[in-house]
Amino acid sequence: MLAALREEVLRANLALPAHGLVTLTWGNASGIDRDRGLVAIKPSGVAYESMTADDIVLVDLAGETAWGERRPSTDTPTHVALYRAFPGIGGIVHTHSTWATSWAQAQREIPLLGTTHADLCAESIPLARGLTADEVSGDYEGATGTVLIDALAGRDPLQMPCALVRGHGPFCWGTDPAAAVQCAVTLEEVARMAALTVLIEPGSGPLAAHVSAKHFERKHGPHAYYGQP
Amino acid sequence: MLAALREEVLRANLALPAHGLVTLTWGNASGIDRDRGLVAIKPSGVAYESMTADDIVLVDLAGETAWGERRPSTDTPTHVALYRAFPGIGGIVHTHSTWATSWAQAQREIPLLGTTHADLCAESIPLARGLTADEVSGDYEGATGTVLIDALAGRDPLQMPCALVRGHGPFCWGTDPAAAVQCAVTLEEVARMAALTVLIEPGSGPLAAHVSAKHFERKHGPHAYYGQP
Amino acid sequence: MLAALREEVLRANLALPAHGLVTLTWGNASGIDRDRGLVAIKPSGVAYESMTADDIVLVDLAGETAWGERRPSTDTPTHVALYRAFPGIGGIVHTHSTWATSWAQAQREIPLLGTTHADLCAESIPLARGLTADEVSGDYEGATGTVLIDALAGRDPLQMPCALVRGHGPFCWGTDPAAAVQCAVTLEEVARMAALTVLIEPGSGPLAAHVSAKHFERKHGPHAYYGQP
Amino acid sequence: MLAALREEVLRANLALPAHGLVTLTWGNASGIDRDRGLVAIKPSGVAYESMTADDIVLVDLAGETAWGERRPSTDTPTHVALYRAFPGIGGIVHTHSTWATSWAQAQREIPLLGTTHADLCAESIPLARGLTADEVSGDYEGATGTVLIDALAGRDPLQMPCALVRGHGPFCWGTDPAAAVQCAVTLEEVARMAALTVLIEPGSGPLAAHVSAKHFERKHGPHAYYGQP
Repeated sequence: MLAALREEVLRANLALPAHGLVTLTWGNASGIDRDRGLVAIKPSGVAYESMTADDIVLVDLAGETAWGERRPSTDTPTHVALYRAFPGIGGIVHTHSTWATSWAQAQREIPLLGTTHADLCAESIPLARGLTADEVSGDYEGATGTVLIDALAGRDPLQMPCALVRGHGPFCWGTDPAAAVQCAVTLEEVARMAALTVLIEPGSGPLAAHVSAKHFERKHGPHAYYGQP
Repeated sequence: MLAALREEVLRANLALPAHGLVTLTWGNASGIDRDRGLVAIKPSGVAYESMTADDIVLVDLAGETAWGERRPSTDTPTHVALYRAFPGIGGIVHTHSTWATSWAQAQREIPLLGTTHADLCAESIPLARGLTADEVSGDYEGATGTVLIDALAGRDPLQMPCALVRGHGPFCWGTDPAAAVQCAVTLEEVARMAALTVLIEPGSGPLAAHVSAKHFERKHGPHAYYGQP
Repeated sequence: MLAALREEVLRANLALPAHGLVTLTWGNASGIDRDRGLVAIKPSGVAYESMTADDIVLVDLAGETAWGERRPSTDTPTHVALYRAFPGIGGIVHTHSTWATSWAQAQREIPLLGTTHADLCAESIPLARGLTADEVSGDYEGATGTVLIDALAGRDPLQMPCALVRGHGPFCWGTDPAAAVQCAVTLEEVARMAALTVLIEPGSGPLAAHVSAKHFERKHGPHAYYGQP
Repeated sequence: MLAALREEVLRANLALPAHGLVTLTWGNASGIDRDRGLVAIKPSGVAYESMTADDIVLVDLAGETAWGERRPSTDTPTHVALYRAFPGIGGIVHTHSTWATSWAQAQREIPLLGTTHADLCAESIPLARGLTADEVSGDYEGATGTVLIDALAGRDPLQMPCALVRGHGPFCWGTDPAAAVQCAVTLEEVARMAALTVLIEPGSGPLAAHVSAKHFERKHGPHAYYGQP
């Protein structure tokens, strides 16, 4: 059932340790078949080395398992909340990658300090508000989706493809699972260079707005000219 | 004699350089057979590349060699002290891993700043008190075990699976040698992200208590739902 | 057409990920055939793993494609501006390498703090001025070349083989593409150690001038004695 | 001529990139045959990948080439000065390893902050005084040996097996080339953890003297009990 999607989601999951974004079994990637309304997602707490496409679980948009022997990732309710809220996205990645997570733990947005960041998105990386005690004791993982959606504040999720869960770590998304992985790789390097920039010069200010706008537009705008036609 | 345990302890020792936790011959892992009261432990100062299960030494709970040609790790008295004090543990790992050791050298507990830490344990990583001159000139390695036990302050060692020896480095433990290795890997990443969090925002405060409690419980509590059933 | 040059430029491009200087498809290397006035340069947004010499594009010194199926790097106008201004150079490398880019984002020159830097060049690594809104909305990449040329302030580009684009990252050059790669590798390590030096001792001052002059001269001056004759 | 020594010195040189201590062709290792008064040393500016034992040069204790086609390392006069002053040493390693060099650039001794350092030596890592303009314009590399010898201030070089050249980087030594490599590896990790300790807690003080003395003695003193008998 949806074997091609499960293979694609497997590859996205395996890309996470290959890019140095995960330790042990942390992190997870998913992808969606919009026609069927089914999400393929990593099983919970399974080692990446032995994972196969048969371990990838299919869940519906309520988070109920539709196919597979495994228990899906504990973060499944967050993924399905994002898929419900953002109809344009096709893949999601969550990691505890070192530098992006450190910004989340510092409870700070990642400021836009250079063109590498502007090549990803045109603003600071948003930081979600903290969850209340009620939200945590209720549907914790679903509420995590809610605060991520709130953090976007109505922005187009394909223009702002990631956000930080306060005290936890990043979620990234894109048109498909591979795009979400690419966002996670880029975000980690952006987070690392932002921290090192602050180390070198604590008062570092944002990149000039006309430069950041230009970089975002040359890669993503209607007149983008980066990459092959 | 206890060949399976020695193999298991060998694998745990070899996992330390594979995870980037040790330099040269530093660090050691052990495991215990509770029925026989024998501990299998790394030999002192032997290169990991050439180590075999026959190099692993068996000692009794007084630290006396019961089997093997090699001299056991100089840290053996610390290991046996922990096994005597914590009947529920089955494996111990000691490393000088970079980031956890830097917190030990800074003589600071590792504060609980994020969910990655809360997935490991629900409080700060304890820092043992310094050893007195008398303790150092007497049974130094045994006394190191004593201050680690004191640092737990009566906590369940399976709920608080590690502590820092002041000015020295971390000890980690678990139900078996592989669990102790997993703790050491997690602790190192937790220590690294805590230091980077402080670099980004020197005044970073602890994670909200309701979030840290939730994370610990979803992974370790009686109603844990992380991983496969 | 110019197959040997395209092979040389391919090798220089592949050296960038091999040396850990690039993430994903970022960065680019080029080389020039001065007799023909043609520059061989990396295609835009193509994965390094699958790149072949046939993907390398030839452009003239106005930046117009002279050979090849691919769209050349978006940074092509910067490369050709540098080749036009610096007749003695034969290769150029641009990266977003972590540490050099962090100095560019901190909007600071890299101070000359040690002999490793002096082995590369005898002064601070220059930081280009910011681009105006007009420059960005006009020929952005060409203007990037202009501010790099201005940053050299008339210095011999073979004596000062690199500079930082403010908020963006480093450009490096040399007598051929391999020399430009070697400069990029050295600059990254110089940038890293300069940041760590400032971390250890925030008030670190420059290396004594007689030491830095000596190191530069023993490697690059008319009486150089480093390397094989 | 002295083929075994040249092989040993080749292996020591190749260990430097294998341990991540060198970039490009930086760094060098040497060894001495005390009976013949000949030093085997790395050639200047040769790539590690293609180096063979036939590239290793033999020089006498005045630094004059006694055998080999290659020009010896530019740092040869420093090596021979150390061999002349320290009759008990048999191997020397010089690197620009990242963290030890950053302490040298910060112009600070590396303070003794933990037991990993005490396992190497019982005091701070000395920092040599700066070279005068006259020393630099005269026999620069020989004078570098002089300030290293001065930095030891009469200590036994086998008890204090390394020192930092101000603004430059570390020199390490030992009973043979492999021991000098081992010192260089340890020093780099000690330097890294010292910097991270200061990052975590800027006011970090030295390790208690009774602990550092104990660690040094259990590994190096007359009653050492670390390693195999």
